Amino acid sequence: MANTLTSRSQDYAQWYNDLILKGALADYSAVRGCMVIKPYGYALWENMRDVLDKRFKETGHQNAYFPLFVPKSLFEAEETNAEGFAKECAVVTHYRLKADPNNKGKLIVDPNAKLEEELVVRPTSEAIIWNTYKNWIQSYRDLPILINQWANVVRWEMRTRLFLRTAEFLWQEGHTAHATKQEAIEETEKMIEVYAQFAEEYMAMPVLRGVKSANERFAGAEDTYCIEALMQDGKALQAGTSHFLGQNFAKAFDVKFSDKNNQLEYVWATSWGVSTRLIGALVMAHSDDEGLVLPPKLAPLQVVIVPIYSKDEAVRARLDEKAQELVNELQAKGVRVKYDNDDSTRPGWKFAEYELRGVPLRVALGPRDLENNLAEVARRDTKEKQSVSLDGLGDNLIQLLADIQQNMYDRALKFRAEKSTKVDTWEEFVQVLDEKTGFIYAHWDGTSETEEKIKELTKATIRCIPFNNEQEEGKCILTGNPSKQRVVFARSY
Amino acid sequence: MANTLTSRSQDYAQWYNDLILKGALADYSAVRGCMVIKPYGYALWENMRDVLDKRFKETGHQNAYFPLFVPKSLFEAEETNAEGFAKECAVVTHYRLKADPNNKGKLIVDPNAKLEEELVVRPTSEAIIWNTYKNWIQSYRDLPILINQWANVVRWEMRTRLFLRTAEFLWQEGHTAHATKQEAIEETEKMIEVYAQFAEEYMAMPVLRGVKSANERFAGAEDTYCIEALMQDGKALQAGTSHFLGQNFAKAFDVKFSDKNNQLEYVWATSWGVSTRLIGALVMAHSDDEGLVLPPKLAPLQVVIVPIYSKDEAVRARLDEKAQELVNELQAKGVRVKYDNDDSTRPGWKFAEYELRGVPLRVALGPRDLENNLAEVARRDTKEKQSVSLDGLGDNLIQLLADIQQNMYDRALKFRAEKSTKVDTWEEFVQVLDEKTGFIYAHWDGTSETEEKIKELTKATIRCIPFNNEQEEGKCILTGNPSKQRVVFARSY
Repeated sequence: MANTLTSRSQDYAQWYNDLILKGALADYSAVRGCMVIKPYGYALWENMRDVLDKRFKETGHQNAYFPLFVPKSLFEAEETNAEGFAKECAVVTHYRLKADPNNKGKLIVDPNAKLEEELVVRPTSEAIIWNTYKNWIQSYRDLPILINQWANVVRWEMRTRLFLRTAEFLWQEGHTAHATKQEAIEETEKMIEVYAQFAEEYMAMPVLRGVKSANERFAGAEDTYCIEALMQDGKALQAGTSHFLGQNFAKAFDVKFSDKNNQLEYVWATSWGVSTRLIGALVMAHSDDEGLVLPPKLAPLQVVIVPIYSKDEAVRARLDEKAQELVNELQAKGVRVKYDNDDSTRPGWKFAEYELRGVPLRVALGPRDLENNLAEVARRDTKEKQSVSLDGLGDNLIQLLADIQQNMYDRALKFRAEKSTKVDTWEEFVQVLDEKTGFIYAHWDGTSETEEKIKELTKATIRCIPFNNEQEEGKCILTGNPSKQRVVFARSY
Repeated sequence: MANTLTSRSQDYAQWYNDLILKGALADYSAVRGCMVIKPYGYALWENMRDVLDKRFKETGHQNAYFPLFVPKSLFEAEETNAEGFAKECAVVTHYRLKADPNNKGKLIVDPNAKLEEELVVRPTSEAIIWNTYKNWIQSYRDLPILINQWANVVRWEMRTRLFLRTAEFLWQEGHTAHATKQEAIEETEKMIEVYAQFAEEYMAMPVLRGVKSANERFAGAEDTYCIEALMQDGKALQAGTSHFLGQNFAKAFDVKFSDKNNQLEYVWATSWGVSTRLIGALVMAHSDDEGLVLPPKLAPLQVVIVPIYSKDEAVRARLDEKAQELVNELQAKGVRVKYDNDDSTRPGWKFAEYELRGVPLRVALGPRDLENNLAEVARRDTKEKQSVSLDGLGDNLIQLLADIQQNMYDRALKFRAEKSTKVDTWEEFVQVLDEKTGFIYAHWDGTSETEEKIKELTKATIRCIPFNNEQEEGKCILTGNPSKQRVVFARSY
């Protein structure tokens, strides 16, 4: 299996697709741009979701569920938002099929079942949610509203890629309502930090935290905060966003509250989301030419135990017994472990398969090992193998999982440091972008025109203006106009 | 709040709606037939989902996710299934909106963005899933496939009711593929029993387990097994179904496998599902004229502690301290508990509010109680109040939660027993149906025509033919033709 993978240096995009398909994370579907998330990929998503969901609840949020469809008249109410998504909306126009009179057994759309008003399949839920909040908010006592929803959304993208950009994807979207601007901004900041910590602590993926330029802002937001990760090909990936929406949606949907002084005010809003795109980021941040490399905290399977059977039934029984002991111990300690004693495949095949699947630790247990009270432990991240005593093996494995998690983060951080470059001239900028790749810290004159021009010329965009960015006088790499700070450029997914 | 509820005897349907809306489980939305599931309702669904998900995984299933959309040509492939759902399909015909040239700021569907093939928003996922399984199944080694998905589905119902029948709803749908008929039937049976145990042990709702008559079968199934519950108005509610699909979908999508003898065979299938409809069932099975009555095992909040404050700050501090001790103890023991010391509402208001919300246990803690080392504990199910010693109160509350769970089940079981009637004549049948209501055990000649006729005359349907049904000679209540068994009739939701 594994040796049929395309290597990263050969064709990075193909390597990625091979991993997703052969690593059994997802599959193509019969629907243009939509994918099937296979059990292994979905288990990864469940682990991500569970951690995030817990963090959302700890930070005071509750889950709810809003309709999939948005009537067109609501969708267009916040004009900037509507304009931003109009070009990629799936639209329901009819509510019935009927038998095709000319083609037995086939169906056609029933022209008599045309909807009076078309329904947009949600590309994001601000419109339907703020139309609902209108009914829930009268007084400052009704605020804040801190709601999250786990849902599917549809954006009709023309060029799709498994996990990274699909017409339908799964995500969570938080939508909060506040009495003051300050409180809404604090919420926006709090949630981007929740995402950043999740990316770093669980995905072992260091991220830049910062603000988007006006060009890259969410349609309808006053400010978009983001986390940006660096992939192994030196391209950036936006991994999560948190938007301060100001009073834009409150004004579009006329959502006012009476404050403590009985004055009517528009409500302040935020929204924030991460999606199954994170799985694509995870794969591209860590994996190698042998397959997936998954961080232990999120890996569906953390430890796999493979017996090296001999023909001696008694030896087999002892191997099974020893392995089962280890499984029991690890499970009791909360480790996701599997004993793969399937007799129909050979150990070598299993080794390659679990390597491909990115299982952090593999324990091989053979008759000779057993005699010597040893097991062979292989780390997926470094591919190191070592003989480890069976005494205390469970705890050693747990420590190793922690080491792998840390090592993966450190490695990614080192990679990012190496691929972060300050440049001061346009020539340097273009050269680094094309040859070294990565995050480029460069001066920019702060105008949308310049950013647009740089994008046209190089396909690089401003990924973010980092929080607490160092202020430094300089000259814009393109225009030479004065600049007060460097911003982070990169080509991106 | 609570005293503005419609009573059950006044108007059962209105009582139900009042409970859903005022109990903050759900709200209407701007989209015809779609509802908003509010945080309290969603928390209930999360509790249900978590229990079921665990049971599915324990019985060997994995979660995955398949596309929301089904291309029309796939949808129509299994003709019986397609015909069954064609009349209630939301259809996506376009993938873009554009600015309305005649109406600034408004959008219209872009006629140039018409899909070549229309997409049906899934009313159920057999078609898209079996089209995928085709690629996953070659050999008997690929079987069984045991997959479940948690998803939203859309059925364009003409008459909708919150939770019970909505255009969009949340559900899980299991889709399994097997090498033999026997194994598929065993899976179908296993999963209906998973549902039955969930309904009885967690929802405290006794259910009949049985087989649907041909008229009531799922479109595309060879057999539909169901669980049927009885609501307080004497109407039945189908709470879950498990379908043996035979080889219908394998034939429609040409899914064959080579068996151990290298013979190509069609794959055998099952599907099974429960939905947010269960929340409607839960509400109607147990609640009363004061509000929701939720079974402790699923209640989002199991215990609420309400302080009866005096003006004395020192006493308040002691109440807070004692309450916090109890909260800590209960949380450590896994109880979902809240200390409501919000000063802006009075205890009486809180009592009514938590009664309306169906919180199983309310603990009131006042200065007098504290002096006497007592608390007042009120059960939601029986409305009994008792003074209970603060010593060992935590464990007593946990025992009371178990008692309430059992009592709710016993009460519902008793109600069902009282509302289950054997009848032998048509006159009796009609009279019981109209006056006593409930489940009616009556002889039926086994024909679809008779069942249809009975439905036309009385709106009663055969809810199920119970598993292991007693065989007994008799005469059909409508036709007088010979019958071998009684079946269960009722009017239903």
